[in-house]
Amino acid sequence: MEIWLTEEQTRGYSVNWKVKSIIYKKKTMYQELAILELEDFGKALVLDGVIQVTEQDEYIYNEMITHIPMVTHPNPADVLIIGGGDGGALREVLKYKEVNAVDLVEIDSEVIEACREFLPSMGSSFDDERVKVIIDDGRKYIESPRKKYDVIIVDSSDPVGPALKLFQKDFYKNCYKGLKDDGILVAQTESPFFYQKVLNKSYNYICKLFKYTSLYLVCIPTYPSGLWSFTMGSKKYRVEDTDPFKKGEKNTKYYTPKIYHSVFKLPMFVEGIITSGMNLEQS
Amino acid sequence: MEIWLTEEQTRGYSVNWKVKSIIYKKKTMYQELAILELEDFGKALVLDGVIQVTEQDEYIYNEMITHIPMVTHPNPADVLIIGGGDGGALREVLKYKEVNAVDLVEIDSEVIEACREFLPSMGSSFDDERVKVIIDDGRKYIESPRKKYDVIIVDSSDPVGPALKLFQKDFYKNCYKGLKDDGILVAQTESPFFYQKVLNKSYNYICKLFKYTSLYLVCIPTYPSGLWSFTMGSKKYRVEDTDPFKKGEKNTKYYTPKIYHSVFKLPMFVEGIITSGMNLEQS
Repeated sequence: MEIWLTEEQTRGYSVNWKVKSIIYKKKTMYQELAILELEDFGKALVLDGVIQVTEQDEYIYNEMITHIPMVTHPNPADVLIIGGGDGGALREVLKYKEVNAVDLVEIDSEVIEACREFLPSMGSSFDDERVKVIIDDGRKYIESPRKKYDVIIVDSSDPVGPALKLFQKDFYKNCYKGLKDDGILVAQTESPFFYQKVLNKSYNYICKLFKYTSLYLVCIPTYPSGLWSFTMGSKKYRVEDTDPFKKGEKNTKYYTPKIYHSVFKLPMFVEGIITSGMNLEQS
Repeated sequence: MEIWLTEEQTRGYSVNWKVKSIIYKKKTMYQELAILELEDFGKALVLDGVIQVTEQDEYIYNEMITHIPMVTHPNPADVLIIGGGDGGALREVLKYKEVNAVDLVEIDSEVIEACREFLPSMGSSFDDERVKVIIDDGRKYIESPRKKYDVIIVDSSDPVGPALKLFQKDFYKNCYKGLKDDGILVAQTESPFFYQKVLNKSYNYICKLFKYTSLYLVCIPTYPSGLWSFTMGSKKYRVEDTDPFKKGEKNTKYYTPKIYHSVFKLPMFVEGIITSGMNLEQS
């Protein structure tokens, strides 16, 4: 018997993953959570039928959402991760010795528990003493955070269900307020192929708030279309002034200081998406 | 009734494309050729069940296999395309006014005929007077080419069936001989995720022949894993010395001079693939 997980990525495009075994499955208060062993991608965290991370390629997403802002900020001592219950981005943040404390705000405690148990390559980062887990809705938490941060990483799922509000103007505004005067925000802003409107809106919201805004791109095999965008807003530090070699290598599989500046060089059509005058007043 | 094309990309990973209509289908001497209208990606050329190009994202592959070598070479007057029967790479080559003549060697004349008729955004490039089509096996043609070239572009399908020999040592050696003393070869060298051995071999074969070899990466949504590699061998001109702004904009959707240098900055794991000591003697 062959078991396959089919993930609809658009109306006319879906992906099938061969499942070796279903390691864990549970309906939590927020979503249907599963840990699957896939034929080609190792173990995977699946939420409501959508693959969030796989052991085979999680490092690309987690390294790139983390190292770019962490290298841009000269001294990121206090870091906030919103979402990221798998612990992957957390693992990367903890590689910086200048980090004193990381708050991680996850809405669904069962995601963290499952990843600690079944995906230790990411989940074991919760064992670090510098980490404080806050079980809360990230959108609510950031309305009155317990302190100001140097770096905020918005590691959300797609803009449907609970994550929808993590792509809206008020949320980004509160993130801005939750940062110190030289703080940096980074958010995953979806596929430039399949979510052009989401990307355009998020980028432009962040652009209106921050002194410097930079979009960067990465290719992530298990995400729809592969091509993925991240938007970074910075109150003080500029990408152009950053020397990525200053902080050295970080025991990574994807990120290296050599690629830091290259990821900000955008293809024509992506420039077109972020500069086009789509209607921003709809959400 | 819904019709879907399922494409097996690895044993445990396949992709489904919703088919609006089957525009054309024929068993040629070499392969099963189809032109499909897809729900989300426009018209597509499909060979033996594998999507080669779609109207929605063909520009990424075709621009990037072409503009990188064409910008690196200061005066690419004589160009050879091996494969590329859809006409997409040809369209990009013809954007350079310094091009006097392009030879395109395609094994299957019916691919060209179908693309001229049903995919004119690519296929109409065959109407240009500078183009000479040679219906032949690229591997054979390059054993005794009718002239020497400035740039050779190997726009092959995957290394199975007729294209297998376009990934072998002797083929690259003959390409080297078929180039002028300052010539440049570029070849598509597959996904660094799914075809690490092919990439390692092709890169190292090219590396042993050419004075300068550079690998570059692009993200192509409809190709397995998205991440795609191209290897460029150059007899004289160095990437590091190239000023991509010299040749200006070329009416492209993906390529811009700004990204030229960035595509050569490789993630750690890709550096690992090309420098690892895999056994090169097997084919």
